[in-house]
Amino acid sequence: MEVSKSEWSTMEEKIAQEAFKIAYEREIEALIGEVRDRSSSIAQINDLWNLHDFLSARRHDIDGKYDYQESALIFVFARLLKEGWLKIDELDGLSADKRTKIAALSRM
Amino acid sequence: MEVSKSEWSTMEEKIAQEAFKIAYEREIEALIGEVRDRSSSIAQINDLWNLHDFLSARRHDIDGKYDYQESALIFVFARLLKEGWLKIDELDGLSADKRTKIAALSRM
Repeated sequence: MEVSKSEWSTMEEKIAQEAFKIAYEREIEALIGEVRDRSSSIAQINDLWNLHDFLSARRHDIDGKYDYQESALIFVFARLLKEGWLKIDELDGLSADKRTKIAALSRM
Repeated sequence: MEVSKSEWSTMEEKIAQEAFKIAYEREIEALIGEVRDRSSSIAQINDLWNLHDFLSARRHDIDGKYDYQESALIFVFARLLKEGWLKIDELDGLSADKRTKIAALSRM
């Protein structure tokens, strides 16, 4: 299965960018909620540094994941599907070929 | 004013360690309160990363400041006094010479 050399039409790019944005906003909203929860139960220094480690890891992860590059989109969408930040029907409008690849990769 | 070569008696060491601990606990408690406050008002991604930057800086600062080394104690106590985490009378029992140096440095 060749996944990295897909061509993206202008319409597909638009759909991809929108889906990207939706997933990003969902993930950030969930993260904000989680940070608020964790913060409310901080009782000692270790909890603080655990929160710091958690934020460092999430920031690194999110910065990397949402770096929009067309060549990596199939993989990123598969990951977003797998992680639950996106649903396959939010990629409607992409070619059937792309959606099949994304769905297949998301189950790996 | 020679500040770095003070000799510390066993009793002074005990007082210093206790004062160190008191200041540390106060600073951590204040930091936990501040992180809770900041967390409760997180509304968007920038607030999250600002919190992360804030925690990175505070962790670096606190890790360095509370690294107990006798040769640096005079300076650390002066700083703790200046920052309000310690009061001069909590250093009662240290030699008058040390307390004078600490108080003088704390006003610089």
